[in-house]
Amino acid sequence: MLDKHAIDYSVYLVTEKYDGRHEELFLKKIEQALKGGVTLVQLREKALETRALYTLAKRVKTLTTRYNVPFIINDRLDLALAIEADGLHLGQKDLPASVARRLLGEDKLLGVSAETVEQAKRAECDGADYLGVGSVFPTKTKDDATIISIDALRKIKAAVSLPIVAIGGITLQNAGLIIKEKVAGVAVVSAILGANQPEQAAAAFRKLYKTIEVN
Amino acid sequence: MLDKHAIDYSVYLVTEKYDGRHEELFLKKIEQALKGGVTLVQLREKALETRALYTLAKRVKTLTTRYNVPFIINDRLDLALAIEADGLHLGQKDLPASVARRLLGEDKLLGVSAETVEQAKRAECDGADYLGVGSVFPTKTKDDATIISIDALRKIKAAVSLPIVAIGGITLQNAGLIIKEKVAGVAVVSAILGANQPEQAAAAFRKLYKTIEVN
Repeated sequence: MLDKHAIDYSVYLVTEKYDGRHEELFLKKIEQALKGGVTLVQLREKALETRALYTLAKRVKTLTTRYNVPFIINDRLDLALAIEADGLHLGQKDLPASVARRLLGEDKLLGVSAETVEQAKRAECDGADYLGVGSVFPTKTKDDATIISIDALRKIKAAVSLPIVAIGGITLQNAGLIIKEKVAGVAVVSAILGANQPEQAAAAFRKLYKTIEVN
Repeated sequence: MLDKHAIDYSVYLVTEKYDGRHEELFLKKIEQALKGGVTLVQLREKALETRALYTLAKRVKTLTTRYNVPFIINDRLDLALAIEADGLHLGQKDLPASVARRLLGEDKLLGVSAETVEQAKRAECDGADYLGVGSVFPTKTKDDATIISIDALRKIKAAVSLPIVAIGGITLQNAGLIIKEKVAGVAVVSAILGANQPEQAAAAFRKLYKTIEVN
């Protein structure tokens, strides 16, 4: 069983913009990222039909299991239950966290996206295990994302006792600014999956996190 | 608890093409259909975000509960669980029925769409309680629907022992042809919700079904 208190959130890979084609390439990139050292994988795909998503999620889970990394499903509690994922990540437009927690059970990881102190506190009360906070930088992955300041990130971090994973536009160039804020991790999409060499990109994030963490 | 063996499938309302606006009008039409005598309601909405769907589903459930009619969610097991719907309806591109049955439990209604004898038999093995079979007529609601013949409907009906609900392009004008095949019900979308008077339309379907059933 997942030890929820021993999760390494430091390099949190979020997969996105998978168009239903090129499945082998998509899985290969995820595997490269796992080899490079991402510590958690979240599948976030909104466009696929349920069966296609189910099949894809099972394949990704096979990879994360091989690399002993927790696997989280975005939004879809049904899929998280169906493939027995390690957890579920909810945005503010997904199921209420309290409802998801009841159906998911206490053993699974539950993450909630928060842009404000109010959302963060509510998520904590509703049973979230960690928060995804952002966007900390502008991002092309999510056009409608609200950008929050470093100061807002600090306020959210101070308001809750949950681990914080910062998300949104994080690259190797700007990640240091965020890691210095002592977040539990940085969530990365295109800076790893869009890199020419996802393995090296993931390894570089890992190294950067560790270097700053010990200082 | 739902008595799965006493379900009246005869006038099975499927809601569709709800665009996220005009929620009050949409709910009003469903209520009119319930007043007119629809015997089951399925919420089939693919376009809404999860939270909006959750909120809408809870409102529809309030109506179906008031009229003592079973309420089924299309595709989304997460929502069916979250709002404690009476059941789930799965298409061939949704979760495998066997997986859904395991997560849904034995007490809930599980419907599966089938276009062929093979799909119908598999659904029966996988734990379906009833089958949605169609499209029996061309339909604008689902552009990519395969049209099946009356003969194909008969073969499916003969191959399984499950109740059959025919679906696809069913109107007051053509429903008689299908009801004569001794199906458990006809699923109707636009011929009720798109009618000027959904209550009268639902009542007319109910009357038609009963008239043919007793002959």
